[in-house]
Amino acid sequence: MPLTTTHVSIRRITDDSASDAEDLLAVEEPLEILVVARAAHAPGARPSAQHERAERRLGITMRTPGNDRELAIGLLFAEGIIASAADAIAVEEGEGPSGALVRVTLRDEVAVDLGRTERALAVASASCGVCGKASLDVASFAPPAPLARGAPRLAPRVVHGLAERLRGAQPVFGRTGGLHAAALFDASGALADLREDVGRHNAVDKLVGAALLAGRLPDPGAVLMVSGRAGFELVQKALRASIPVMVAVGAPSSLAAELASAHGMTLVGFARDGRFNVYAGRERVAVPAEAAS
Amino acid sequence: MPLTTTHVSIRRITDDSASDAEDLLAVEEPLEILVVARAAHAPGARPSAQHERAERRLGITMRTPGNDRELAIGLLFAEGIIASAADAIAVEEGEGPSGALVRVTLRDEVAVDLGRTERALAVASASCGVCGKASLDVASFAPPAPLARGAPRLAPRVVHGLAERLRGAQPVFGRTGGLHAAALFDASGALADLREDVGRHNAVDKLVGAALLAGRLPDPGAVLMVSGRAGFELVQKALRASIPVMVAVGAPSSLAAELASAHGMTLVGFARDGRFNVYAGRERVAVPAEAAS
Repeated sequence: MPLTTTHVSIRRITDDSASDAEDLLAVEEPLEILVVARAAHAPGARPSAQHERAERRLGITMRTPGNDRELAIGLLFAEGIIASAADAIAVEEGEGPSGALVRVTLRDEVAVDLGRTERALAVASASCGVCGKASLDVASFAPPAPLARGAPRLAPRVVHGLAERLRGAQPVFGRTGGLHAAALFDASGALADLREDVGRHNAVDKLVGAALLAGRLPDPGAVLMVSGRAGFELVQKALRASIPVMVAVGAPSSLAAELASAHGMTLVGFARDGRFNVYAGRERVAVPAEAAS
Repeated sequence: MPLTTTHVSIRRITDDSASDAEDLLAVEEPLEILVVARAAHAPGARPSAQHERAERRLGITMRTPGNDRELAIGLLFAEGIIASAADAIAVEEGEGPSGALVRVTLRDEVAVDLGRTERALAVASASCGVCGKASLDVASFAPPAPLARGAPRLAPRVVHGLAERLRGAQPVFGRTGGLHAAALFDASGALADLREDVGRHNAVDKLVGAALLAGRLPDPGAVLMVSGRAGFELVQKALRASIPVMVAVGAPSSLAAELASAHGMTLVGFARDGRFNVYAGRERVAVPAEAAS
């Protein structure tokens, strides 16, 4: 098992006391992702040795160790490099000069346009820094398929219960307070799977990667719950995975609500303390029985 | 004034009621950053037209509009592209094909190694996605100068008060719940400046950029407070700005505590509800009078 928490010596200070103590921190470490694939031919270019299968360094992500294969698969899927887990014929973990690495070998039919890929990966990390060339707008994002209208249909009491179930199922957060979580539920509120990470984007990539590897996505009844806020990129990841409902404990951003609305996805925010707000796709959320009667 | 919040129509659902309402969301929009600079000569290469001053597209960040010039300056500084605000002879806002842009013109003496810059910028966004080539480890990060030992010295009651002052000074968060904040305080707990953004890294870049433009950094008595968790990159940004104390409302990561410790920086986490933990540099935090007596 990789180390997801680590003990550190701290000084704990309250209004009137100071004590030396041990604390648990969530581990944050770099992971290098390599892809072995054919390069896409430039339009009109003749095939050359450059287009043969080669190993490419996609980049490094800071993540909490664990579920690294799922993280790599989820990320490649989110960025449109693979269309399914079957596009990856091998996913190996190893050690490189920067620490842990995952090497994903793609089947021959999947050609990687490295320039496009680098731009796409840059987009993936846009919410907390500058990225490369990107189409960070609602109009240009195209999910693989339109979502089914009206399904699933969620009872308000199910949505009310999700935040508590998410927190209850977060083993590491309970010990460190330092991890984001992403979980898949079904429309009855039953937990299907959960992943944790210091990065909220990583948590979603791990979750989606695990579901893809297990053949559990696409699922027209899936509900994605995230422990933090709902930014543009998280909605993008959910749409890419054809997940029709996303519920966030925190606030959505303006662009997240716009993107969800444009693609018929249901976006719920502030799901805590017995209330929530529906920012898009309200037809999937039933009106409370008391309010309807 | 740029739009930092936007009204949206929502459905608000509680246990027994559903109502249509208006809600305020924090705006999230792309900002393109362009740098006009000379290219650094490759070692041994002869000067050529390629090394003349040219405009380069550094990338796009998703940010909350406002303080865009400060964001650009703070980011270029954090990434080591400029060493001071004086390295930028012009910082202009404008409109580009992707929306808002900031164009930073560097003085002739500042040559930009674009390859290095792209890697550095990729690092900047590492916490929630994959980045390019990077040196994401404690050993290889070098701040511009060592921090002064033992100063500033903070009374515990000052640290206790920071979280409340941060929240009290967050105008947009109060209305949307969707923004991260970063603030500079002095050692007595007086607020010097505060910035908000959907991205926590952006909030710190805006804050540092504003302080650089106003000539208020470096300041050996500065205390940086952040509303969320303390990850590796935020500690990096603080060290780069020679800020000796960082206080987070949330949890630090393992690598953040390691990096702070390696460079003699004070890192405080979980500063809320009348308690906090000191993860590094404890000599700058006084023991409570009651505990000492």
